[in-house]
Amino acid sequence: MDKLHLDKHISRQFNEELESLRQQVMTMGGLAEEMISDATRAVVEGDTELAQKVVEADDRVNDMEKAIDERCIFILARRQPTASDLRLVVAMLKTINDLERIGDEAEKIARMAISLAEADRPRNNYRELEIMGTTVRGMLHDALDGFVRLAPEVAVDLVREDKNVDADYEAALRQYHTYLVEEPRSTRRILDAIWVARSIERIGDHAKNIGEYIVYLVEGKDLRHASLAEMERELAEDDDSD
Amino acid sequence: MDKLHLDKHISRQFNEELESLRQQVMTMGGLAEEMISDATRAVVEGDTELAQKVVEADDRVNDMEKAIDERCIFILARRQPTASDLRLVVAMLKTINDLERIGDEAEKIARMAISLAEADRPRNNYRELEIMGTTVRGMLHDALDGFVRLAPEVAVDLVREDKNVDADYEAALRQYHTYLVEEPRSTRRILDAIWVARSIERIGDHAKNIGEYIVYLVEGKDLRHASLAEMERELAEDDDSD
Repeated sequence: MDKLHLDKHISRQFNEELESLRQQVMTMGGLAEEMISDATRAVVEGDTELAQKVVEADDRVNDMEKAIDERCIFILARRQPTASDLRLVVAMLKTINDLERIGDEAEKIARMAISLAEADRPRNNYRELEIMGTTVRGMLHDALDGFVRLAPEVAVDLVREDKNVDADYEAALRQYHTYLVEEPRSTRRILDAIWVARSIERIGDHAKNIGEYIVYLVEGKDLRHASLAEMERELAEDDDSD
Repeated sequence: MDKLHLDKHISRQFNEELESLRQQVMTMGGLAEEMISDATRAVVEGDTELAQKVVEADDRVNDMEKAIDERCIFILARRQPTASDLRLVVAMLKTINDLERIGDEAEKIARMAISLAEADRPRNNYRELEIMGTTVRGMLHDALDGFVRLAPEVAVDLVREDKNVDADYEAALRQYHTYLVEEPRSTRRILDAIWVARSIERIGDHAKNIGEYIVYLVEGKDLRHASLAEMERELAEDDDSD
């Protein structure tokens, strides 16, 4: 086999390695998505069995992060990727960090669900948490989808959605604040609901982060800490050059 | 200049690059440390000016993370480090991620300090928060010191300290819970104090994470999600082989 063929062979094998890694990241993301919807449902329906399932799933998410992380570093060491391959490995390393934290937050929600299942249920059955949970689950779904399609424009939608989640979270907090004053007997339950709202809000932040890694991966730009306006401007400039 | 000299030259330059990066990580860490103690003092003393300083410092921490992150990726692309050099770059990438999050938490504490400064002060002047804040600041200091000294054993101390912080946090929560029931008039203030306690508790988690990156850097082992007993066993095994 001559040098060129060997190179081609190595490069095909390398592409397969990267593709397999990307698959693993998506599998991990799918599990995190499922954990969010299960944890939210466990709160709304007072389903402690489902909550227990989420708590157990967190161990799997942690193991997946460790395995993918090792694999990424192995690739950095052996394949010494450059340009877009390097950006893909770095983006995957960062994405799994956020997915792992999403798993942690989902686990916390599930633990609160177990505690809440023992308490009286409010009239609206935690509708505000259900709405927030559905929104951030959708955000994570869009982020993972954007990662597969290499679609940096999802980052702008995610920033916008995250602002909505933040507003929903603030509104929920104000409501809980009133409950705390009016129903000191339900303090424990209301505090638990506050923790759930907080965890959901943080999941939104992590989904937004993943959107920013897609921009970095595709455009080579680090837009973290950029405002929505700056982000739209940056991405619009790229459209112009198409 | 012959090939060997050229290699030596490149390797010396590379070492200088790594050393300069490590310095930058330490500078960033020092700023994060300062933010923790300033934010805690702002809460305890009701000092809104100091709190404002912390809020502004967070922008600098974010900029530092971005700059170091770019530099690390540049080194991965150009120098294609392997073995311990690669582990150092990866450990720095992860460390700055945690430092950036510590900055975020300190900023949140500072914002709560501004809100708390307007409210009545409790008799004990938030002594419980002062103690927790001092502990996690010390944890971060030890973690950064362990990074410089390449001392993986600090990881075990950090895990132990983090357990203490978690216990302090749980105790503070129970106390606040009682206050919420007894003093519904102070609900806003007590909720703010709860957020401060929560942010301090999370800073402890991040300091603990940095300890685990030192283990990875020095021993090449990923001990995240390991129990304290597992961690002690792993590190003891290395001592045996000395």
